[in-house]
Amino acid sequence: MKKLFKEIANSIVAPRGFLASGVFCDIKRLGTGKGSDKGQKRDLALIVSEVPAAVAGMFTTNQVCAAPVKVCVERVKRGTAQAVVVNSGNANACTGQQGLQDARAMTAWLARHLHMPVEHVLVGSTGRIGVKLPMANVRAGIDEAVTLLDHSPAGAAHAVEAIMTSDTRPKQFAVEFKLDGKTVRIGGICKGAGMIQPGMSVTGARPAALSQGLHATMLCFLTTDAAIEPKTLRTALSEAVARSFNRITVDGDMSTNDTVLLLANGLAGNRKFGLRTSEFGIFQSALNQVCLELAKMIVRDGEGVHRVVTVRVNGAKSVVDADAVARAVANSALVKTSWHGGDPNWGRIMDAIGYSPAAVVEEKIDIGYSAPGGRKILWSLKRGQPARATFKQLCAAVAPKEFDLHIHLNLGKAGAVIYAADLTEAYVDFNKGDVADPGSLGG
Amino acid sequence: MKKLFKEIANSIVAPRGFLASGVFCDIKRLGTGKGSDKGQKRDLALIVSEVPAAVAGMFTTNQVCAAPVKVCVERVKRGTAQAVVVNSGNANACTGQQGLQDARAMTAWLARHLHMPVEHVLVGSTGRIGVKLPMANVRAGIDEAVTLLDHSPAGAAHAVEAIMTSDTRPKQFAVEFKLDGKTVRIGGICKGAGMIQPGMSVTGARPAALSQGLHATMLCFLTTDAAIEPKTLRTALSEAVARSFNRITVDGDMSTNDTVLLLANGLAGNRKFGLRTSEFGIFQSALNQVCLELAKMIVRDGEGVHRVVTVRVNGAKSVVDADAVARAVANSALVKTSWHGGDPNWGRIMDAIGYSPAAVVEEKIDIGYSAPGGRKILWSLKRGQPARATFKQLCAAVAPKEFDLHIHLNLGKAGAVIYAADLTEAYVDFNKGDVADPGSLGG
Repeated sequence: MKKLFKEIANSIVAPRGFLASGVFCDIKRLGTGKGSDKGQKRDLALIVSEVPAAVAGMFTTNQVCAAPVKVCVERVKRGTAQAVVVNSGNANACTGQQGLQDARAMTAWLARHLHMPVEHVLVGSTGRIGVKLPMANVRAGIDEAVTLLDHSPAGAAHAVEAIMTSDTRPKQFAVEFKLDGKTVRIGGICKGAGMIQPGMSVTGARPAALSQGLHATMLCFLTTDAAIEPKTLRTALSEAVARSFNRITVDGDMSTNDTVLLLANGLAGNRKFGLRTSEFGIFQSALNQVCLELAKMIVRDGEGVHRVVTVRVNGAKSVVDADAVARAVANSALVKTSWHGGDPNWGRIMDAIGYSPAAVVEEKIDIGYSAPGGRKILWSLKRGQPARATFKQLCAAVAPKEFDLHIHLNLGKAGAVIYAADLTEAYVDFNKGDVADPGSLGG
Repeated sequence: MKKLFKEIANSIVAPRGFLASGVFCDIKRLGTGKGSDKGQKRDLALIVSEVPAAVAGMFTTNQVCAAPVKVCVERVKRGTAQAVVVNSGNANACTGQQGLQDARAMTAWLARHLHMPVEHVLVGSTGRIGVKLPMANVRAGIDEAVTLLDHSPAGAAHAVEAIMTSDTRPKQFAVEFKLDGKTVRIGGICKGAGMIQPGMSVTGARPAALSQGLHATMLCFLTTDAAIEPKTLRTALSEAVARSFNRITVDGDMSTNDTVLLLANGLAGNRKFGLRTSEFGIFQSALNQVCLELAKMIVRDGEGVHRVVTVRVNGAKSVVDADAVARAVANSALVKTSWHGGDPNWGRIMDAIGYSPAAVVEEKIDIGYSAPGGRKILWSLKRGQPARATFKQLCAAVAPKEFDLHIHLNLGKAGAVIYAADLTEAYVDFNKGDVADPGSLGG
């Protein structure tokens, strides 16, 4: 990314004409008494545009795919939407026909309140897998959330809280830029900390090229006041997700519920633009920036994560090879534990490169480290053999909370980047689960 | 395996005409003083046949492959060998031309002592990656080990100790059976605890069908006094490894050094047998049993492992699909941590099945548990929906140290089995490494 756009506050309500809210309606059935318990984390969010908006979406390619994803895939195809209802605490995944009915019923309940066609309402869920949604609670939550819909920062802040599960902090970002003299804004909120290695596509179907190893629930809801055709919006979102959410991994597990939705309501008043225009270039760059910032927040807040490592592979014969090498290294239990330990163990990195499905030649591989985004690389290995850096220097290179790992295969011109994390005792401890709270973690 | 053969003692020296020894020669350069320090774990082993033997080998398909593997791949092709020298503490991997010279020099040094052609001597290494072998120590170790070569159980016990790295216990097994009236024995020793998901082939080259995800250093040395042609021996070993070592995973990382060698010296005096004979069937079954027992010992002694889970996939459209599902589940960080926690979390299992490269249909999947090898399955999920078992019953099913996980895809007739392990805080703690001891762990 060459140009960085101006960061602004208020995430999803920064663009004109968007409202949001978030409430607690006890979707995990904590049984803390009747009605809304103000001491509990919110668990149901609404995002609404004042006017119908162009919509684009990207969805998990997991073949076991949650009911809300199935509903969205169908509705997003129409290209128009106006509202999103999202719950945490229950993924509504592996819930069969009842799950599908419940997902549709959530949208219908909201559509009735807002007097809009049910097809214009989208839905997202995250939380336990395999548990039926407590629909009475959900309906009560929607009833309350509708009354709280708000243009103010509080609405967005409540919505982002409501979509969190194992997240330790809210994740939101927005930018502002000009398109033919008009001020345009893009904002987003997201969640995700475990079950994170998204591989999303427009239809939820797997592209052949991505079939190897693409594997969070991560949810991301983006808003913009740009005026743009749905088809153009879809192209922009596919590109932005390919460079951001589809390039992160916390634990290598692709969720049943991964969803990114982008609503563009046109209230900025710019002229609509086509794919081969400078306006599209600007919009794409701004959307890329928002998605990448949000994606990196997910990795940094990954379950038990102590260190964030950007794996940069270059010199591969093909992008597929570069991606395969980056993912093999980024998902190797031994490499990830060495990152946790601050150990510049290149043997484990070489091992993972070697077993990746990519074609590699041991004697050509370079491995080095830099500061995040830095150009000055401290080489650990050159052409498969230890370089001049001392062990002390290498330890210093992998000591920061964030660093870049550079792998040059020296076989071709293709590259790939994966935003990865270490593997810690805290991850294991968190995910070994609490048998007293069955199925507490999931999609 | 239908028929179990009689287990006997003395592993690699149980078959007639084999000798073994193991010594300490400070290959990790602990610097504990000159000469052999009797307080240290042995680190160099010899296995020798009194007469030249038929030989077969299986080697890591990792493209980054250690020098001893390269030397063995070439020499095993000839079909005859008589001795093996193995060291722990240093993998002699990523050591370039010097590493190759050192591996060959080890075999030459032993060949001179034993007055045999250097081509009849094989070599194995396990330990640190990327560190040159201390050849003076290695030569001194071989000098001492040659004087200690022994037919007695002590020789085998010292050899198995010498090949251990992070192993907490020695791994050895042997069986005895009859072939045309003659008593034949097969024995083996092995090591391996981390960097374990072997995918070995005869040449170290990757078969296309195994290219997805096959990923220890595990070393295994097998001896038999059966009389058998090298070509027949190779077929038997390929089959036995395909059903055992190539079906285990501890952490999903395939090593640079995985090696299985089998020497058959013919001293049992049986008539040589061809592939389509009842004798071959008996020999194959016995070899399968030895390899499977040894492979399971590796999983049980895996780094930090608390629970061992046999993942049995059935009803797949193809063996490749069944294998892909079994490995996705067996290597999922979230599934493995739930096993550690004793949590029968089927949502995570469904998630991993869904993102595997195999074709699956959520609504057809059954998931259940049994005792190891048991036929009575407690179903957790039937046709994608929770079965009648209570959460308490399911918790009881996953509470034992070992259990079987059954996944029925209900799409076809193919199946696959993977011997897997949980992921624990102890694994992370062990592998985050000791920066004060650079590169302490590896191939």
